[in-house]
Amino acid sequence: MLQHHPRIGDGGTMEYRFTPRMERTPRSFIREILKVTERPEVISFAGGLPDPGCFDPAGIRDAAIGVLDEDGASALQYATTEGFLPLREWIAGRYKRRLGLSISPDEVLITNGSQQCLDLIGRIFLDRGDLCAIERPGYLGAIQAFSLFEPEFASVPLDDAGPEIEALERVVQAGARFFYGVPNSQNPSGITWSPERREAVADALEGTDTLIVEDDAYGELRFDGPAHAPLRSLAPERTLMTGSFSKVLAPGLRLGWIVAPAPVMHHIVTAKQASDLHSNIFAQQVAARYLATAPIDEHVAMITTVYRRHRDLMLALAADLFPEGVSWTRPDGGMFTWLTLPPGCSSLRLFDDAMKANVAILPGLPFYTDGGGDRTVRLNFSNASEEAIEEGMHRLARALAVQAKPAP
Amino acid sequence: MLQHHPRIGDGGTMEYRFTPRMERTPRSFIREILKVTERPEVISFAGGLPDPGCFDPAGIRDAAIGVLDEDGASALQYATTEGFLPLREWIAGRYKRRLGLSISPDEVLITNGSQQCLDLIGRIFLDRGDLCAIERPGYLGAIQAFSLFEPEFASVPLDDAGPEIEALERVVQAGARFFYGVPNSQNPSGITWSPERREAVADALEGTDTLIVEDDAYGELRFDGPAHAPLRSLAPERTLMTGSFSKVLAPGLRLGWIVAPAPVMHHIVTAKQASDLHSNIFAQQVAARYLATAPIDEHVAMITTVYRRHRDLMLALAADLFPEGVSWTRPDGGMFTWLTLPPGCSSLRLFDDAMKANVAILPGLPFYTDGGGDRTVRLNFSNASEEAIEEGMHRLARALAVQAKPAP
Repeated sequence: MLQHHPRIGDGGTMEYRFTPRMERTPRSFIREILKVTERPEVISFAGGLPDPGCFDPAGIRDAAIGVLDEDGASALQYATTEGFLPLREWIAGRYKRRLGLSISPDEVLITNGSQQCLDLIGRIFLDRGDLCAIERPGYLGAIQAFSLFEPEFASVPLDDAGPEIEALERVVQAGARFFYGVPNSQNPSGITWSPERREAVADALEGTDTLIVEDDAYGELRFDGPAHAPLRSLAPERTLMTGSFSKVLAPGLRLGWIVAPAPVMHHIVTAKQASDLHSNIFAQQVAARYLATAPIDEHVAMITTVYRRHRDLMLALAADLFPEGVSWTRPDGGMFTWLTLPPGCSSLRLFDDAMKANVAILPGLPFYTDGGGDRTVRLNFSNASEEAIEEGMHRLARALAVQAKPAP
Repeated sequence: MLQHHPRIGDGGTMEYRFTPRMERTPRSFIREILKVTERPEVISFAGGLPDPGCFDPAGIRDAAIGVLDEDGASALQYATTEGFLPLREWIAGRYKRRLGLSISPDEVLITNGSQQCLDLIGRIFLDRGDLCAIERPGYLGAIQAFSLFEPEFASVPLDDAGPEIEALERVVQAGARFFYGVPNSQNPSGITWSPERREAVADALEGTDTLIVEDDAYGELRFDGPAHAPLRSLAPERTLMTGSFSKVLAPGLRLGWIVAPAPVMHHIVTAKQASDLHSNIFAQQVAARYLATAPIDEHVAMITTVYRRHRDLMLALAADLFPEGVSWTRPDGGMFTWLTLPPGCSSLRLFDDAMKANVAILPGLPFYTDGGGDRTVRLNFSNASEEAIEEGMHRLARALAVQAKPAP
């Protein structure tokens, strides 16, 4: 054991000087809220967790055994920055089968969940003061990731069919580096861009320097009707597409990917290497082995069946129980619906009242880069059981009634 | 299958505008060289890979089975940003047992390998133009990670006992945000800071705003004599210490950690969350389960025995075979020795000559932030077998003889 020589002058006198970017990065609501949901008596509609009943630990276990028995050393050694080639080939193959999209495995890089894609995109495209366009409301995790690069945010309002094109044209004209959106079953709103709106977005950007960042976290979790064409198929040169195994396989593996044209991929590889050399190769090999043999279409169908039932139950209960004046979206996939409270109500007050009743919601405020959202609420329907949804919606309706009384 | 409508105007006309930081980030030599080493006929001393024979795939396999059988859902679900508490407790406990260091698990955050620590430190402390002090030669991965934040580098020359204190004092006076170093068996030089030099470094920084980043990737891989006191014990308030499971467990799991005082940890958590939410919880649980029962001291002793033998063999062959005027360090641990060629020689030319003879080395140039290093070479002794070291050193000696002929 070593002798220690703590310096007397060193204790408690240190002044840390952090970069300005850290002061501008919003501390996550979700983070604080995940802590709250650890209390077992709370029913949480606040987080964004999948239903753990939809995981396949036995299948993952068999794949892990296979990987370690067959060539364990290669699964434990350093690996390439781009990621495990068979996994990238599987991703490219699935785009082909599912959407008819032609993507080369060379255009795919494996990340630590799709959150890292947003970080890498920020690194290579956003400098301090650059204009960064994002949906309104916009995905909180993207706002956090991009904030570290200190851009100016410009928001493009969403209506029921997608981003408003006139607003998009204005921010493109102002020189936005990219427009970030979640065209399928958006987080937080549940809105899916219509086929026409996708065409209009691609038209609005054509001939400009503005890229599209197409976050497709929820494309596989579609409940109603066939998939729409991805932006990548409409504007392949200007679209960076991100994907994730978190929704269909398991978030704990932290495996996502980014699809990018070759000139962009070159820089993404450099940024990824400086960040963490490469993603967990053991997890990549386990996922590739699992996906090579598992009936993945059936697995996805099982998940969407469960989540569709959850959505239907939550929306039916909202219609039955919520006071007049409260409205909500009807998502065609994904994990979230989006409430709007009547004028005069406050989602922060609802959060407090709901927590007293042991039900957690996510106030909409952190999904706005320019203020507002104080009457909006995100509700997650993927994680809670049907029993918990039933009970939680009753609790929430009572909390809502405190503010949104039916007119006398 | 969807219809595609590729836009004619979109193909090949796109001009991508990348941030200035991407142009200043060095593309990795190591990356290019790892590609070269994939040719099976090449004996590589160029990379920094552990000996895969030192991995324990069977032990990892049993731990993976245990984790997935016992509570698979928790290993596959989203998890906290700080990391799996039992793993952070194990890390804190090992510092106590091994070095007598008192560290709270709250001061430990799990990262994707220790490379990510450097990225997180850059994010929270380096703004464009800030002064960043680093050893000369300095670890290439750190230079890459910090470069993304566009600092000015100031280098502090290493002698056999560590950083030169007068040079350090000058860069501290110039306002360096932190001084980054690898005090144990440095990458690339193999130099270990003496106990006296560690005290002198702590003295030089006392009362200033300059932090210490103590990269302890190789502390466990010590061949000769007891460990020296870490900087963290000498200047706890100003030291950020990074560690890694890559050297003692397996790099493929991408598990490292950072130890930081509470006010710094607050910002590290925010930056980590924006980067990728959290590290692979499956790998974290597997590692924690493995470490809870595996005889880790014996495992580390096995690895150090192997690497010590490799070092002894490589240095004995250098003494026998290398031309006069070539000198090298005698590392007391780690994975590298550092050659200096005689005046008039070139490490880039040696690289070419060596590759023709199917042996790979790493020229020293990318380890310098201010030019120089053209007569230095890093040799790795951990990855190649003893037979390969024997053969590779003969090949390298012949390549060396082309330039460094014994005086007639």
